[in-house]
Amino acid sequence: VKVQVRRVGLIGCGVIGSAFLELARKKHSFIKSYLGIDIRIAALCDLNPKIKRIAGKLGIPFTSKAEDVINNSDIDIVVELIGGLNPAGKYIMSSLRKGKDVVTANKALLAGRGRKIFKTVSETERALGFEASVLGGVPIIKSILDSLQFGGIKQIYGILNGTTNFILTEMSKESESFSSALKSAQAKGFAERDPSLDIKGIDSLNKISVLSFLCFGKLPQPKKILAEGIERISPRDISYARELGFAVKLLSAAKSSNGKVEVRVHPALVPLGHPLAKTDGALNSVFVRTLTGGDFFFSGLGAGGKPTALAVLSDVLNISRKRVPYNFFANSGNNFLFLDKGDLIFRYYFRFSALDKPGVLAKISKILASYRISIASVTQKKSDLSQGKGKIVPIVMLTHAAKESDILKAKAEIDNLSEIREKSQMLRIEEL
Amino acid sequence: VKVQVRRVGLIGCGVIGSAFLELARKKHSFIKSYLGIDIRIAALCDLNPKIKRIAGKLGIPFTSKAEDVINNSDIDIVVELIGGLNPAGKYIMSSLRKGKDVVTANKALLAGRGRKIFKTVSETERALGFEASVLGGVPIIKSILDSLQFGGIKQIYGILNGTTNFILTEMSKESESFSSALKSAQAKGFAERDPSLDIKGIDSLNKISVLSFLCFGKLPQPKKILAEGIERISPRDISYARELGFAVKLLSAAKSSNGKVEVRVHPALVPLGHPLAKTDGALNSVFVRTLTGGDFFFSGLGAGGKPTALAVLSDVLNISRKRVPYNFFANSGNNFLFLDKGDLIFRYYFRFSALDKPGVLAKISKILASYRISIASVTQKKSDLSQGKGKIVPIVMLTHAAKESDILKAKAEIDNLSEIREKSQMLRIEEL
Repeated sequence: VKVQVRRVGLIGCGVIGSAFLELARKKHSFIKSYLGIDIRIAALCDLNPKIKRIAGKLGIPFTSKAEDVINNSDIDIVVELIGGLNPAGKYIMSSLRKGKDVVTANKALLAGRGRKIFKTVSETERALGFEASVLGGVPIIKSILDSLQFGGIKQIYGILNGTTNFILTEMSKESESFSSALKSAQAKGFAERDPSLDIKGIDSLNKISVLSFLCFGKLPQPKKILAEGIERISPRDISYARELGFAVKLLSAAKSSNGKVEVRVHPALVPLGHPLAKTDGALNSVFVRTLTGGDFFFSGLGAGGKPTALAVLSDVLNISRKRVPYNFFANSGNNFLFLDKGDLIFRYYFRFSALDKPGVLAKISKILASYRISIASVTQKKSDLSQGKGKIVPIVMLTHAAKESDILKAKAEIDNLSEIREKSQMLRIEEL
Repeated sequence: VKVQVRRVGLIGCGVIGSAFLELARKKHSFIKSYLGIDIRIAALCDLNPKIKRIAGKLGIPFTSKAEDVINNSDIDIVVELIGGLNPAGKYIMSSLRKGKDVVTANKALLAGRGRKIFKTVSETERALGFEASVLGGVPIIKSILDSLQFGGIKQIYGILNGTTNFILTEMSKESESFSSALKSAQAKGFAERDPSLDIKGIDSLNKISVLSFLCFGKLPQPKKILAEGIERISPRDISYARELGFAVKLLSAAKSSNGKVEVRVHPALVPLGHPLAKTDGALNSVFVRTLTGGDFFFSGLGAGGKPTALAVLSDVLNISRKRVPYNFFANSGNNFLFLDKGDLIFRYYFRFSALDKPGVLAKISKILASYRISIASVTQKKSDLSQGKGKIVPIVMLTHAAKESDILKAKAEIDNLSEIREKSQMLRIEEL
């Protein structure tokens, strides 16, 4: 086998970077003999002095300035693993302009600045690998681009964030509150100290934006997207939902129908029998529905150094073998529009906290009827709170399909009733 | 975009071939503008006069002689979809030698003659795409070769045959007998008239052999492999297994440990919570355990024209973009040995049909003990048969881990007991 040397410059040596370093070294001789590619880590850039010491031990040239990597003409591929918009975006753009191929795991950057970055990829005729940005080591991006898209992708759903899925799974198993489950996730290293990007659904939103771009050719504008986190989920919703045959999941979705695309992230009631409902703990998964090839399901560890490092390494190898880039722009002439949040249609789950007095249900029903929302089922649950003089009872209701904007108006009116003692819980039911 | 013309010759236009023809035509302009590849079906070979008429209508040159396709110097890629060992093998070898790339869905051929075919691929420096041979449209082969293998594959499990999985799912839902479920599968088009390749596990064996080759670099010898079908599964085993927390699946496995590889296909008790246990109906799935990337799960329609055609098309496109072939031979220097059938170790499920007389269990236990097989649990089920004078009761037993060769000897001795009135049922429990 003719051996080809590829020099890699690594910018950012945190959890993923270190795991990539380890994996690339461990697999070096296998890759060399198997693929004829001699992967050399030719520069390591980080701000952490510990990493400097490690680089020293391994004999890898170290720098604390990214420019040293970007301007190094010996380097073929820059691996960006610092995350965030800045300066990661600047580093990637300069690397491409310096004629380097780039590998990144940075979904925030792709979702936020993707248009500019992909344009630069195209102009510079360089390769950009971002398999590591979604679903860890599972080659979902390659699978979509090299196969599934030719079957006509109609819908893609994902459980794309390990932290929130771990928390919801804990809440479901232990009937724990959100805040207590969050604490135990932090203790176990499944949630960061500042978990807001995860629990508010921002990380999931970034990932579904990337997937939506791959499937439908357009990056949505983050502000226009329905994006809700899991903070307001209570264990009782999880348990009521299970009685009704659903799991509660932080679901990401991108769907195309009638020339419009909807992209959204929110907690959803998912039928218990569906593989998405069975994606538990730190696992992530993606469900793809195609026109001609049927349904596909992929799952694996969606986060963590080692699984993500596997995706980074496979991108480095695929780029070395010229199996990337893809032409991302053929689809982008698509004339579809993103569906307005308010025009989304779901069946809904409601939990009302109402004073146990006659006539409450009649008032709720009247408001719903005034918005043409019809009720599929109502159950009054056992009261478990007493507040001042009146007894509070949870009323769980499922609606038939209704328009989001109508639901929001009806909910606001219901929450204004004097008999309603706390904000009503509203969750969307996913039809799968 | 610079457009590159690729001329495809299709040999075999049955269910998959027709679906491929349709998909390639439907996606022609998308592929041309998106990838810059102009896929032209330049020849169609089949023995069916109906296909000749279809080819005529579509303006595709038709022939009934495969040689016309193979010797046509205008053709770049030969797609072989006739299946079976002969003459498919001959066609593929001649096509490669004539300088053509080849795409096939033929697992029987790869499992049976893979060594010779891959050698020819290597010698001729041509590409061979066989994504369609396993798991329909799910790009499992590409995922293994381009990604997962770099995480160090330890184990791969699959539910690789749609017919048998459909039958077992029906048996499980309806408590139907095997023969009745087979008939309904045939009526619904999920089983062929001669279903023996499927139900005897041969199709699964071919597929796990291909996967084993990809993961561990060696093709096993079919005769040396434990391969059992599902004919002897009864609905009562499925229901007893479920009570014990297991689903009964026709499981294919390839595992590497201590320098030895085991490859096998047999009905197995799979823990109900595992995604493999939840792969129902005509779905197929693969579960891969890696050293560094954790566990991966893929599922989709494993058979049928359209899903398989998607895999064929993606191979044609990947070959056109030089994203195939893979060097299959780096691994083949591996010095591992295949584990002997008799040395396999499992926990086992037994169902004995015994005369309801005192002392039967003592006799069974004594035989098991003589082979150092220890019992984990025993349950005597309700009797549902009476045979002549004695009442027959089913005794369900789980053992602790034991060696296959010991189990087979013990089972033979037990079946010889006068109190045992029919062949005992023995199923392996899969540890996952």
